[in-house]
Amino acid sequence: MTPLDELPTPALLVDRARMEANLAAMSAAIGAAGVALRPHFKTSKCLAVARRQLAHGAIGFTCATPAEVELLQDEGVDDVLWAHQPVGPAKVAFAVRALGRGGLTIALDSLEAAGPLAEAAASAGVTVPFVLEVDTGLHRAGVDPDRAVATAAALTALPALELRGVLTHEGHLAAHGSDRAGLEAAGDMAGRTLVQVAEALRADGHACPLVSVGSTPGATSAPFAAGVTEARPGTYVYFDANQVGLGSARIEQCAQTVLARVTSAQRPGTVIIDAGIKAMSSDTIATAGILGIVCDPESGRPLDGVEFTAGNEEHGYLTGPGTSGLRVGDLLRIVPNHACGTTNMWSTLHFVEGTRAVERHPIEARY
Amino acid sequence: MTPLDELPTPALLVDRARMEANLAAMSAAIGAAGVALRPHFKTSKCLAVARRQLAHGAIGFTCATPAEVELLQDEGVDDVLWAHQPVGPAKVAFAVRALGRGGLTIALDSLEAAGPLAEAAASAGVTVPFVLEVDTGLHRAGVDPDRAVATAAALTALPALELRGVLTHEGHLAAHGSDRAGLEAAGDMAGRTLVQVAEALRADGHACPLVSVGSTPGATSAPFAAGVTEARPGTYVYFDANQVGLGSARIEQCAQTVLARVTSAQRPGTVIIDAGIKAMSSDTIATAGILGIVCDPESGRPLDGVEFTAGNEEHGYLTGPGTSGLRVGDLLRIVPNHACGTTNMWSTLHFVEGTRAVERHPIEARY
Repeated sequence: MTPLDELPTPALLVDRARMEANLAAMSAAIGAAGVALRPHFKTSKCLAVARRQLAHGAIGFTCATPAEVELLQDEGVDDVLWAHQPVGPAKVAFAVRALGRGGLTIALDSLEAAGPLAEAAASAGVTVPFVLEVDTGLHRAGVDPDRAVATAAALTALPALELRGVLTHEGHLAAHGSDRAGLEAAGDMAGRTLVQVAEALRADGHACPLVSVGSTPGATSAPFAAGVTEARPGTYVYFDANQVGLGSARIEQCAQTVLARVTSAQRPGTVIIDAGIKAMSSDTIATAGILGIVCDPESGRPLDGVEFTAGNEEHGYLTGPGTSGLRVGDLLRIVPNHACGTTNMWSTLHFVEGTRAVERHPIEARY
Repeated sequence: MTPLDELPTPALLVDRARMEANLAAMSAAIGAAGVALRPHFKTSKCLAVARRQLAHGAIGFTCATPAEVELLQDEGVDDVLWAHQPVGPAKVAFAVRALGRGGLTIALDSLEAAGPLAEAAASAGVTVPFVLEVDTGLHRAGVDPDRAVATAAALTALPALELRGVLTHEGHLAAHGSDRAGLEAAGDMAGRTLVQVAEALRADGHACPLVSVGSTPGATSAPFAAGVTEARPGTYVYFDANQVGLGSARIEQCAQTVLARVTSAQRPGTVIIDAGIKAMSSDTIATAGILGIVCDPESGRPLDGVEFTAGNEEHGYLTGPGTSGLRVGDLLRIVPNHACGTTNMWSTLHFVEGTRAVERHPIEARY
């Protein structure tokens, strides 16, 4: 039990009570719809957090990278979805090894990506359970819905590949910003589009048991489209300032904070803290002009009139009339814009109860 | 010797020949002015690179964090400048331990920050060699020049503190963008302002042997102001797209690249690569609307009509007419916007000769 005042700054904190409440609430909401919960591991990259997600009923995890897949397989997680296509000799070789351990499903969207994987898997004598990635509006990876049947036919004609279902990431919802009704309508549409694709694949003779949507802003709409079988939110474990901006969370639910100190106060209206863009990540999605929400270290409540308006690598700039109340040495807790990007800056997190750090855990599988 | 095609993607590469040329050129330019070179370690966080900087005549290093200071002290570097004030009990305790090992100088700008350090150092019986940080235009940390004499008097009245000189970081030069003449004039002004402060401190009875400027964009002007004794550029070891935008480097000098592959190509005019903001860092300084410069993996030359316009965590979006020539599986090398921020995303770098990775080295001292 270490008082926050004794931790080196900056430090990455996770309020355990808030995290547990977030996990319980998402499990209850998704479970009530009869939908399985497969959280994205990228948000925490921390096995101590992943174990709590499993305890709250997660069926397994979604991963983005080989290192994330391997870490969870080493942990004994037997249902892992790798939501990125393994392209190139090194990733294909990794995929074949990981598939050989069992319990892995891979997302694919093209014959070009699938061909070398199918060939390598067939040579090694392993099958490749896969989901077809479908574009429901983000326009990133994923086939257009009207090309799904043809693409599935081409992929399942390859050796070793076994279609398990369809997947989408409804990341385009963030474009709705604080228009929560528009966002939810778009999430519902993404879910229904994916279900229609699954039905078209079934009509073409595929089993297609898995219909998987995934995002935290979409978690209140997309999983509830009839026929969706699983949801893959990530950020909900901690939430963040972006999710507050999107209306997916209230500030009181945000479990991840960066602990920082005021280190310099030379000019009225500005103080400098020891958390910059290497501590916070410089991503913004639904937060304009800030690098996070500055909170009191004890109450956790946002400080009035204090804005985190700019950052250099190891310096943050707090501005606004409220900075007149801040002194060199003062401790602050900052809710980051983007929980996943912030996690990725850190090798360690501290679980916090009140104002005491009670456990320290590694963050793994960073590049 | 691993061909680039066999490396997992994304991967962080450093072209050794370009790096050596950058190190030689900076050492020659700074050395010709009779100024000492004390590079900032943050840009590489890699001892293999630091050793090459020492071989090219660096007198020691600048650091930003306790972990950087400790790593270099463990390496035996006996002249380290910690350019951030250690505020808070944990950092003060670290500073006293590190000062006890010798060869460490610390930047300070206020009595509030210096007081607890002076007290702890005096109790431990160690002295605190320090430089007074001076604000020459960035308006971050550092005293206004006209308050330098009074602040130095207050600090040197504390126990254990020993003034060694003055320091500035002329980071405000980046605001000049591609106006190279304006940037160089501002760099010269920063150097001359700092020298004037040093002279005022000497007139007040301080020895003040160290007059230290530091930045890569300012490295062609600030160190050449008569009376400056050392320069602390960081980014010059690799350069980056920001420095190309500021006119501090040509693209052919950029030694750091991220190796990536095309993983999806579903829509005309866009392809998706496996390097997103977790591989690149999302910092921009003098690069508007891009996440890096996309280059051919063999020639290293920028690809015409291919722009890296957006990134999610593990996906990059390349757009433009030149993407019609890209196929799933194609290898690319991307010059990042910000070398230091990109380094911070990686635990390993590969030295590259031509199109072969020849050595692999750890990147350390990340959070």
